[in-house]
Amino acid sequence: MSKKTNLTNRKTIHIEWGDCDPAQIVYFPRYFAYFDACTTGLFKKVGLPKRKMLKTYGIIGVPLVDLRASFIAPSRFSDTVVVESEITEWRRSSFSVRHRLFNKGVLTVECSEIRVWAAASEADPERIESKPVPREVIERFSVKSLAGPKLRRKKR
Amino acid sequence: MSKKTNLTNRKTIHIEWGDCDPAQIVYFPRYFAYFDACTTGLFKKVGLPKRKMLKTYGIIGVPLVDLRASFIAPSRFSDTVVVESEITEWRRSSFSVRHRLFNKGVLTVECSEIRVWAAASEADPERIESKPVPREVIERFSVKSLAGPKLRRKKR
Amino acid sequence: MSKKTNLTNRKTIHIEWGDCDPAQIVYFPRYFAYFDACTTGLFKKVGLPKRKMLKTYGIIGVPLVDLRASFIAPSRFSDTVVVESEITEWRRSSFSVRHRLFNKGVLTVECSEIRVWAAASEADPERIESKPVPREVIERFSVKSLAGPKLRRKKR
Amino acid sequence: MSKKTNLTNRKTIHIEWGDCDPAQIVYFPRYFAYFDACTTGLFKKVGLPKRKMLKTYGIIGVPLVDLRASFIAPSRFSDTVVVESEITEWRRSSFSVRHRLFNKGVLTVECSEIRVWAAASEADPERIESKPVPREVIERFSVKSLAGPKLRRKKR
Repeated sequence: MSKKTNLTNRKTIHIEWGDCDPAQIVYFPRYFAYFDACTTGLFKKVGLPKRKMLKTYGIIGVPLVDLRASFIAPSRFSDTVVVESEITEWRRSSFSVRHRLFNKGVLTVECSEIRVWAAASEADPERIESKPVPREVIERFSVKSLAGPKLRRKKR
Repeated sequence: MSKKTNLTNRKTIHIEWGDCDPAQIVYFPRYFAYFDACTTGLFKKVGLPKRKMLKTYGIIGVPLVDLRASFIAPSRFSDTVVVESEITEWRRSSFSVRHRLFNKGVLTVECSEIRVWAAASEADPERIESKPVPREVIERFSVKSLAGPKLRRKKR
Repeated sequence: MSKKTNLTNRKTIHIEWGDCDPAQIVYFPRYFAYFDACTTGLFKKVGLPKRKMLKTYGIIGVPLVDLRASFIAPSRFSDTVVVESEITEWRRSSFSVRHRLFNKGVLTVECSEIRVWAAASEADPERIESKPVPREVIERFSVKSLAGPKLRRKKR
Repeated sequence: MSKKTNLTNRKTIHIEWGDCDPAQIVYFPRYFAYFDACTTGLFKKVGLPKRKMLKTYGIIGVPLVDLRASFIAPSRFSDTVVVESEITEWRRSSFSVRHRLFNKGVLTVECSEIRVWAAASEADPERIESKPVPREVIERFSVKSLAGPKLRRKKR
């Protein structure tokens, strides 16, 4: 199964008072701020913290074009949750990310993002254009997923 | 076409500096905060401002179970956008809402929410349960869409 | 008293569900997002919507250096509040803004901001430097407060 | 000097893309969300995670009545900062918290909060009233600061 070969990032998140709404559960847009940070964490894991990534490749970010989410059960302030994130597909100038949020080991939110590799247009800096994802960025994920990041580091 | 009979709420939103990210475009979770306010606006339009709605029907809110969004083009701070929102389907204890965000008349974000009519469990107040949407709540939307809110008020 | 001659911006804000915390009152950092939008509104009122202002004067924004706030009484979702904002002092490269938030006519939050007129450093674009506030920006506020914006436009 | 005896909580915060504004620096209201989480962290450190604290003492939270902040230098996404927080004063039904945010060891934001120990009014559950801070809550901080939390637990 291909899923096993994907590099996964695990992020532990403490749910804060300010992330919750008057129903005392996480205000749903906050989940997307969590997941956005998790996507950032995925790239950081392969050596591309966001600020460095933007500078290195001359992009303005990896904005979303599509989002799907299922909210299976609520979480509350003082809960500690874990989000597992992985890139499930690379396309020419976009990629898909899947996030799964677990509360006490139970899957409670699932989210799929499609994001584009985006740069400012040279003709009009106010316009944003998609660009091909650099080969080497994609390879950072596949190399890691084959040998594992820990193992490779030991070899060096 | 059934869409014509749906009551639509139009909300004008001024995009603020603080809604935008370092790419100078709306940070996507903020769109969901806009849309959440638009769903609230829909109910307010039929005479159910949120605080009153919660008190009247003994619910804790209308939390999401499913969300889909397409981001077609970015918007920026100082832009003024319009969101058109409508309930596209009522089910026993849930309903679907569609939001379409227009910037200078162009559709730039589309979002579908599925929300549940939710109350605290009587057995365990920490648990949230879905409840049947009251008949009269649904009727507020259909009545309005036939005769129009202004007209009916005059008749009374 | 000089306060009377200050140009005042009044902004009506509908307090949203997502602005409130599990205590069912406004989550206090959200007040500062309101006030930030009110400062933006002040400049817009004198003909300087934020995007235009940044472009015209080559600044990156008007970031805060100091903030003080008193929270006198809470507000809740579904409340509609009014914020009155004014610039209380201009200094060489900074200025003070005062915001007063009224709920049903009662002052419930008061806030003072000190902000700087800030540009990217020419030597190092990652650094931010304060710059003198342009004379003409300050004059937009004083001229308006004497004759009123509508009147002057007619004269031209 | 009394400050030395205050229990201090250190919280490491990774500054996220979504915490920053179009000037590419932290959007200032986000600092207050950080600090709010730091105050929560202080109480958690003495054995009172927020949800437990609210349930144990029948309070709705510890809302702010006063806030002061100085922004000395900006921080950016991908920065990792440390916030040191301590309670600087206990009064009958309120207390003061001081937060200092360090970026690469340099103090960049300083904030003082005054918060009240607040419960829903028995006469009118919609009203919020301050209550005396329980003796035992205050003692958790002083005991810890003398002997240290680890040491005391071993003794038991």
